[in-house]
Amino acid sequence: MQRLGPWSREAWAALALQLLRPPRAPCAGGTRDLGPQQMIIREKILTAVISCFKRHGAKGLDTPAFELKEVLMEKYGEDSRLIYELKDQGGELLALRYDLTVPFARYLATNKIKKMKCYHIGKVWRRESPSITQGRYREFCQCDFDIAGHFDPMIPDAECLKIIYEILNALQLGDFLIKVNDRRILDGMFAVCGVPDNKFQLISASVDKLGKMSWKDVRQEMVGKIGLAPEVADCIGVYIQQHGGVSLVEQLLQDPKLSQNKQALEGLGDLKLLFEYLTLFGITEKISFDLSLARGLDYYTGVIYEAVLLQTPARQGEEPLGVGSVAAGGRYDGLVGMFDPKGRKVPCVGLSIGVERIFSIVEQRMEATEKIQVTETQVLVAAAQKNFLKERMKLIAELWDAGIKAEMLYKKNPSFLTQLHYCEETGIPLVAIIGEQELKDGVIKLRSVASREEVDIKREYIVTEIQRRMSES
Amino acid sequence: MQRLGPWSREAWAALALQLLRPPRAPCAGGTRDLGPQQMIIREKILTAVISCFKRHGAKGLDTPAFELKEVLMEKYGEDSRLIYELKDQGGELLALRYDLTVPFARYLATNKIKKMKCYHIGKVWRRESPSITQGRYREFCQCDFDIAGHFDPMIPDAECLKIIYEILNALQLGDFLIKVNDRRILDGMFAVCGVPDNKFQLISASVDKLGKMSWKDVRQEMVGKIGLAPEVADCIGVYIQQHGGVSLVEQLLQDPKLSQNKQALEGLGDLKLLFEYLTLFGITEKISFDLSLARGLDYYTGVIYEAVLLQTPARQGEEPLGVGSVAAGGRYDGLVGMFDPKGRKVPCVGLSIGVERIFSIVEQRMEATEKIQVTETQVLVAAAQKNFLKERMKLIAELWDAGIKAEMLYKKNPSFLTQLHYCEETGIPLVAIIGEQELKDGVIKLRSVASREEVDIKREYIVTEIQRRMSES
Repeated sequence: MQRLGPWSREAWAALALQLLRPPRAPCAGGTRDLGPQQMIIREKILTAVISCFKRHGAKGLDTPAFELKEVLMEKYGEDSRLIYELKDQGGELLALRYDLTVPFARYLATNKIKKMKCYHIGKVWRRESPSITQGRYREFCQCDFDIAGHFDPMIPDAECLKIIYEILNALQLGDFLIKVNDRRILDGMFAVCGVPDNKFQLISASVDKLGKMSWKDVRQEMVGKIGLAPEVADCIGVYIQQHGGVSLVEQLLQDPKLSQNKQALEGLGDLKLLFEYLTLFGITEKISFDLSLARGLDYYTGVIYEAVLLQTPARQGEEPLGVGSVAAGGRYDGLVGMFDPKGRKVPCVGLSIGVERIFSIVEQRMEATEKIQVTETQVLVAAAQKNFLKERMKLIAELWDAGIKAEMLYKKNPSFLTQLHYCEETGIPLVAIIGEQELKDGVIKLRSVASREEVDIKREYIVTEIQRRMSES
Repeated sequence: MQRLGPWSREAWAALALQLLRPPRAPCAGGTRDLGPQQMIIREKILTAVISCFKRHGAKGLDTPAFELKEVLMEKYGEDSRLIYELKDQGGELLALRYDLTVPFARYLATNKIKKMKCYHIGKVWRRESPSITQGRYREFCQCDFDIAGHFDPMIPDAECLKIIYEILNALQLGDFLIKVNDRRILDGMFAVCGVPDNKFQLISASVDKLGKMSWKDVRQEMVGKIGLAPEVADCIGVYIQQHGGVSLVEQLLQDPKLSQNKQALEGLGDLKLLFEYLTLFGITEKISFDLSLARGLDYYTGVIYEAVLLQTPARQGEEPLGVGSVAAGGRYDGLVGMFDPKGRKVPCVGLSIGVERIFSIVEQRMEATEKIQVTETQVLVAAAQKNFLKERMKLIAELWDAGIKAEMLYKKNPSFLTQLHYCEETGIPLVAIIGEQELKDGVIKLRSVASREEVDIKREYIVTEIQRRMSES
């Protein structure tokens, strides 16, 4: 456990959690409940995401919340310290999954699957410092799409970018940008600039901070903290401050230093092909080749990407300001092989939609504009006078059995006004009213809550009449 | 940690897990992946369950996978030892949720909610001895429906039973029986038979085994293991071997011993009312008042129930054989108060659908009868000759943008036969074929996989034509 001075990182985190937690809320720090309104929003987002995944022919997959600890170890680089482990209560050592990619790779290896296009939706857990204002939680939902198999270069990769584009478009989150880079270009760049092999990972993590930090501060970290020679840092600086389209790829293919490096050349060649495919898909206007994109996770081996939402610049000429990553992914050709006893590789490429950040945005917007109806109830079965509980129960059972969404109040004798109020509060559009006169006449009074119009419907036609009205609305 | 001789219970469990786990499958013992076919089945079940919950006006809820350890402790009686705890990595002590009921009660208390009807679907975790053949897993999905609030007696309780009835009917699992009892009747019965107060819980657990064990063996456990006086056990035996309908309730209301006990009288009175409501709902034919139903969990305070599937008896006159509980629940009026600083109670009643057992049954049946299509893809974009990758990509992007579910093979030049085979294997009904002649004529050949019929469609009408065909099928 890494100590940072007299208080450990964990102790500070615990204190922060204590302060962040509302007083009477015994929810574990960094986690939250989703109430009915939030569930409606979550459902709306997931529906859009899943329908896109299915449009691209993906099959479903589900894996357990915890894996053998050994499955998760040495897959995430420095981030491994954020993995939640289970207590040793006898038996196997277990840990909660940190993402859905490693379990997917484990699933492929376990079942000797060589080819698969699938989606995988579930919660993952990370012991992050809690920062709920940034929409960063310790439990959150991921939506992954992955293509595994030996195929021709960049065809599945291009589809992954198309999917991110389609989903962000469908959710109408505002303007966005998908940054693209390649691990091989990064590694080639580090090599030609003279970064020692053992510092690739640390420098890579530093590079990834550009954008959140200025180049001056990133350089300071590289030189001061990691101990890179200043001229090496400056060499990196020249590259990673560039971003652009396919013309930047072509320019770097001619770069005197980079073009000497085999890995970098492969990466650039593939990116060129990728841009060609993205042009056919008609989505290049949202794509930016960005040499500062590094992605922390150990397992990426080729193309990497990350989608960020853009805020409209406050003044003309200002750079649009990113409000955080909402989707990311890349190619990981070595991961499945790590789980195979003979090391047989299955190349993979995939993406992950960050539901939590998207959720925060959609939630804000929906709260601002509309009242969210949290139930789908179509009719309330009500009584006009006392002593009609039995009649209400008989009628509501009939409605349920006919597939009609119906409620009644759980009181023997609720007042008529209370019943009407309930409809207005919860947005139920119809009331089926039983009363003395109605019972005598063999009818049910059907009332529209909005128009207050009431009509008598013969008891035997009430189901049909409600169904007719619901199919019209 | 309880030791059972030289090997601990945990050590045996670990060995069993080792043996049960297939050799190359590094899935944690007692858990499993759901592949595409299984996901289709799971989705089918959840859709039926959720649509019933929504028909009854329930709102959605989601709670975190782990809770503060203190939230889960002292809620489950003896079963608490099955709770998975997280490793202490600094910060709060956490544990994986054991069911969805306790988190629901915690949610109500946290948010001071006094009234709510909601459903809650998610995974729960229990350190059970693995017995995968019985469909018992260490990770499994629960679907809960709960009604919280102060209402008139037995109205919400009756609705819970109606929901179980509707769901088991909708899933067409075969004949079933819903056993009903009341904790107050059990406690009253123990009191009048002379069970010492401190043995109520142990004896209750023993009673619950009747059905799985013969009365002789249950009696043996009560007398030999728990140390009950034989005449006390026999008194219990007379009661718990009875089951029936409302007439048994009425008979017990006249029982010279039971009728002297206030708790038992309350329970019997409520059951009588419950039967009246179930008659109005038209479901009494599936309800059995069963005095041996005890349910292990500590938190129940009133009516309890459990649905079991019945197998058709092999010979006439034989008792139908239960194949395990598929739904259960009851009233828990004290649980929310345990989380409230002032102990304010919110009465609750609810039910939980055991998706895993239902899953096993539906899976068996579907595997036996039908080939399950795991994707929804409507059209494969194919090439008749080489060098049409670009045209395929342009066309498929158009189809995706129009909301059509489309796939293409990720090869530059797949053979035509391979592309047709792919459709037959995966059940894709249409192929959009691009070829030299078609390109020259400005058409796409649209082929029906089933009939092998091919027609040329003008390039600009291809989207409309596919949409028309899909809406017809």
